[in-house]
Amino acid sequence: LSAKSHETVLEINLKALEHNLQVYRSLLPVGVKMMAMVKAFSYGSGSYEVANLLQFNKVDYLTVAFADEGVELRQHGIELPIMVLSPDEQAFDLLIANRLEPEIYSFRILHAFLEFLADKRIKGFPIHIKIDTGMHRLGFLPEELDELTTILQQVRSVHVKSVLSHLVASGSEEHRAFTEDQIRRFAAGADRLETQLGYKFLRHIANTSAIVHWPGAYMDMVRLGIGLYGVDMDGRLALDAVSQLKTTITQIKRLPAGATVGYDRKGVLFRESRIATVKIGYADGYSRRFGNGVGEMQVNGQLVKTVGSICMDMCMLDVTDIIAHEEDEVVVFPDLRKAANAIGTIPYELLVNISSRVKRVYFYG
Amino acid sequence: LSAKSHETVLEINLKALEHNLQVYRSLLPVGVKMMAMVKAFSYGSGSYEVANLLQFNKVDYLTVAFADEGVELRQHGIELPIMVLSPDEQAFDLLIANRLEPEIYSFRILHAFLEFLADKRIKGFPIHIKIDTGMHRLGFLPEELDELTTILQQVRSVHVKSVLSHLVASGSEEHRAFTEDQIRRFAAGADRLETQLGYKFLRHIANTSAIVHWPGAYMDMVRLGIGLYGVDMDGRLALDAVSQLKTTITQIKRLPAGATVGYDRKGVLFRESRIATVKIGYADGYSRRFGNGVGEMQVNGQLVKTVGSICMDMCMLDVTDIIAHEEDEVVVFPDLRKAANAIGTIPYELLVNISSRVKRVYFYG
Ligand SMILES: Cc1ncc(COP(=O)(O)O)c(CN[C@H](C)C(=O)O)c1O
Ligand SMILES: Cc1ncc(COP(=O)(O)O)c(CN[C@H](C)C(=O)O)c1O
Repeated sequence: LSAKSHETVLEINLKALEHNLQVYRSLLPVGVKMMAMVKAFSYGSGSYEVANLLQFNKVDYLTVAFADEGVELRQHGIELPIMVLSPDEQAFDLLIANRLEPEIYSFRILHAFLEFLADKRIKGFPIHIKIDTGMHRLGFLPEELDELTTILQQVRSVHVKSVLSHLVASGSEEHRAFTEDQIRRFAAGADRLETQLGYKFLRHIANTSAIVHWPGAYMDMVRLGIGLYGVDMDGRLALDAVSQLKTTITQIKRLPAGATVGYDRKGVLFRESRIATVKIGYADGYSRRFGNGVGEMQVNGQLVKTVGSICMDMCMLDVTDIIAHEEDEVVVFPDLRKAANAIGTIPYELLVNISSRVKRVYFYG
Repeated sequence: LSAKSHETVLEINLKALEHNLQVYRSLLPVGVKMMAMVKAFSYGSGSYEVANLLQFNKVDYLTVAFADEGVELRQHGIELPIMVLSPDEQAFDLLIANRLEPEIYSFRILHAFLEFLADKRIKGFPIHIKIDTGMHRLGFLPEELDELTTILQQVRSVHVKSVLSHLVASGSEEHRAFTEDQIRRFAAGADRLETQLGYKFLRHIANTSAIVHWPGAYMDMVRLGIGLYGVDMDGRLALDAVSQLKTTITQIKRLPAGATVGYDRKGVLFRESRIATVKIGYADGYSRRFGNGVGEMQVNGQLVKTVGSICMDMCMLDVTDIIAHEEDEVVVFPDLRKAANAIGTIPYELLVNISSRVKRVYFYG
């Protein structure tokens, strides 16, 4: 990849992604299936490009948030089974046409789906039952499961392919007891469903952190998200960075002490300074919170800080103390976790916020 | 527009946009031209859809940040002149092919452009000269203008169509003297350029706030951005809201006192509560900073707060005290300026962060 791309790009290393998949696989006993989260444009790193690699590497399942995201994958030839976390009633026809399997999380969505299927000649369409074991987001509460089986026993149009739940704090020491409780409640709920339905389905509850911390939560399948994209929230594994956000220096100026930089004169220069304008702003997903020295970028291996407010399409860096030239390449997040901490968020948000205006460039190596 | 859209959409009222354009036009003396900022996907509200309306309403110029954005407009039939604030060397051919007019902000970019044009048979390609009068972002410093004219006097391939600068704090009382100084420096620089080049060009420095506060800065043209999109940073004008972000309630649950909601158990319920999950998360541009009660949405005309952390594709609202049903429509930003204040940012950032996953729906009325 060229050192001077003259634009803002997100470089995505598919080999690193493959490596990370391998790292998590190596933690799992033989037979545990792998579901990969490709929702939200694969956490910002691409849709079918990433899905394609996962398919080649024989993951068992993909997950998207909305039907549209699944349709895009099918349109690009992805053949893996795909689960949709938040299926819209309006998109039921897309689900059927594209073999997208809905997560069924409430009686409302179940009835709507059954009604939709009623006049079709479909038998055994795969669905996934979400049990709410404590996240209190989507899902049937455990006390609702008996009523659920009563309904499911009466229909042929759907077939329970898997039962899932989601852990609230699988990476937290503080909440270990809560996590244990979630796993226990999930197992009990799934057992009851299995007995009542009289057939087996896949069980899954583990996200990335649970793969590291909760072997007891592996069950039949795990759901790998952030770890695949190279972010090790626990700092224990040898993951490879998958994406790197790069921009370039547009202009460098020498400015006198006392000058101010950017909107509302927020960047005050206390000495004669060299200020570089770079081609990334908050419309690209570089948060305004990185302004005024909070954001740190890397130019020619050296760290520099922002000056003044982040603009919509640009921001300014203090390059007084380093070697830097116009057109030099700039690494926007030299350390993604540190950057997220600096503005009080998590790496997930920085990744998914990189806007569609930023070109994605894929490579393998 | 249907009250139950069952998805997350950004509704864009083109009539409101037209109204706002009219409001600003009515402040200007006859003859002052209007340039409209459509960069960053028209501040999040669409590209050619907005540009098309502006063309119909005979604005004089459009401005984008990058060449790609201009190409998209041309591909959709936009014929207005378009200025590109941050032209890439790599995109010079696109500029020529699409009649996109570069802002020339430094000797580097000028030389590169002249070199690029050298072997073409192009005469008088329109360029825009940016003078840095205090923003210290892009632009020639006033002391560089003599050297600039020396170069421009020797070439035929380009023609200076306009000279511009950008105000740092046109909405701020505190910085009035600084703004006056910027306007003075700009006029002086433009005068010198005009005398030396021997021909006239358009002069422009006023953004939205300057249209309200600085009649002396109107000159030949103003550059309208945020006001067009219905955000009146000063609260003085009768603007109409242009875009409205809406989502829907996916599920509502009754949960006991003591239960917790969402990741890391951040949302603690101190009473029996009704919690609604809605279909918008930080991957849609609803910042994680809105979590834990900071964010306020509107359901059936009633205000409610977020509970727990914002998830990637969803978040939760406390609807205990209001009338709310599953599938009800939710207005995400009942008051955009208040929402921006609540998380320490500006409305601009909230608007441009609404991600490409959110469907845009245009209407006129
Ligand atoms: C149902 C479900 N399973 C598995 C994952 C993977 O989590 P991780 O990336 O930590 O491995 C997610 C991610 N959720 C996102 C982060 C959210 O809803 O906010 C999820 O929603
Ligand atoms: C050169 C230029 N002119 C005119 C405008 C319009 O400003 P307003 O939206 O306040 O009317 C902008 C917007 N700038 C954005 C906000 C930025 O660079 O951050 C601009 O960069």
